[in-house]
Amino acid sequence: MTRQQLVTQIRTKHSYLCIGLDTDITKIPRHLLSEPDPVFAFNQQIIDATLEYCVSYKINTAFYEALGLPGWEAMAKTLDYIPSTHFTIADAKRGDIGNTSTQYAKAFFEVLDFDAITVAPYMGSDSVKPFLEYAGKWTILLGLTSNSGARDFELQLAGREMLYEKVMKTASQWGSPDNLMFVVGATQAEEFVNIRKITPDHFYLVPGVGAQGGSLKEISARAMNKDVGILVNVSRAVIFASHGEDFAFKAGEAAKQYRDEMMGYLK
Amino acid sequence: MTRQQLVTQIRTKHSYLCIGLDTDITKIPRHLLSEPDPVFAFNQQIIDATLEYCVSYKINTAFYEALGLPGWEAMAKTLDYIPSTHFTIADAKRGDIGNTSTQYAKAFFEVLDFDAITVAPYMGSDSVKPFLEYAGKWTILLGLTSNSGARDFELQLAGREMLYEKVMKTASQWGSPDNLMFVVGATQAEEFVNIRKITPDHFYLVPGVGAQGGSLKEISARAMNKDVGILVNVSRAVIFASHGEDFAFKAGEAAKQYRDEMMGYLK
Repeated sequence: MTRQQLVTQIRTKHSYLCIGLDTDITKIPRHLLSEPDPVFAFNQQIIDATLEYCVSYKINTAFYEALGLPGWEAMAKTLDYIPSTHFTIADAKRGDIGNTSTQYAKAFFEVLDFDAITVAPYMGSDSVKPFLEYAGKWTILLGLTSNSGARDFELQLAGREMLYEKVMKTASQWGSPDNLMFVVGATQAEEFVNIRKITPDHFYLVPGVGAQGGSLKEISARAMNKDVGILVNVSRAVIFASHGEDFAFKAGEAAKQYRDEMMGYLK
Repeated sequence: MTRQQLVTQIRTKHSYLCIGLDTDITKIPRHLLSEPDPVFAFNQQIIDATLEYCVSYKINTAFYEALGLPGWEAMAKTLDYIPSTHFTIADAKRGDIGNTSTQYAKAFFEVLDFDAITVAPYMGSDSVKPFLEYAGKWTILLGLTSNSGARDFELQLAGREMLYEKVMKTASQWGSPDNLMFVVGATQAEEFVNIRKITPDHFYLVPGVGAQGGSLKEISARAMNKDVGILVNVSRAVIFASHGEDFAFKAGEAAKQYRDEMMGYLK
């Protein structure tokens, strides 16, 4: 999906909501456990119920890998089930020497046909560039993450700036706003104004709203640019809005609520 | 496998060789492609031929993920095939917020019963600690990697030290030399003396010998400690020593050559 197509989706649906399919099998409604593929059955119903309120789905690969082979299968089936109108993200946090990153790019852009993958920056340019070489695909590099551990390195001084600033400035030379986004956590609202200065045109994938406590209002006010420029991810607060048989309905309601709030900020 | 068991293996076999099963299906001998699982067939023969010369096998997950489901299956079968005398490493470079890292730990320490996993440090303590919580398992954190991209961030100043130093110093507080190792690339020989000062007791996983050009002699001289303290990984130079029908025999020869050289340095 191109940047223009993504922006059109956002404008059409009045939503920049990304729904995180962090499908923890221990948290899905018990009645689904008798299904041949409970995780896929859960995801199908979540997708059906939320489709009209979001522009993107993010599959957190850890929750699928934790199930072994059946998990990998559920991931592939889920990806196939998401319609091509929606921007698909493999939240995989991959990254290795060039030779190996090329294989990860193949895994998530060819074998699995995701639009985007999240990538870790620590190992530098040759660990990131193989992902950027795919035409029509997106690399979403970790910038400033939403977790408490962000203070250990990302928010430490690296020269005259903080490490996350150095990472975002340096990496913005490797790709363009048409194939590179950054992860910036919603819990880091006070940094958003500075972050927009460094990377005025890039899209951000913003996790941390919902269970992690970030404010949709604050980050929308501080981080939007003329092309909207943010995808706000919510995982648990949507997909586990209810643990009962009404889980899909409740997920739809939660997603609609986020969309309605976003509609206000998009005006 | 405990540290003491690992050291005993090294002393018994006179080897600190780790063989990297970076099994690229496009590089394995053509006659194996008619096997039901070519990657596993290749790995089996490589393992049989090299078992006595090495103490560890490292499975580079990217090469398996790039094959989709059959790759994930080949990885599981390969892991099962490695005898319990050998230290098994998932070279997966994972790391995410705590909630998600817990799932990765489950994937590689429970569903797949690896001894160790490589982890990326960028996201800080809560992204690493879930791996350290598994008794008898090892976290191998990226310190200073072997690739050219190490210059982009790892070798940049972070306060009064380089980022990789800060990472290694900080992370050595999270675990102990009994459950935490670091990745230090063999191509970074000039940094090894300094690195040993920061972390005198830790084991290092050292990639970069062989195809990447690092010197076994140099890193052995600079990085060993009283418990040996290094696992030197060779991937392509062993497993692709020949692309013909003699591939396993040639891999055995190459592994023996590394073992023989190591035997000299262990005296």
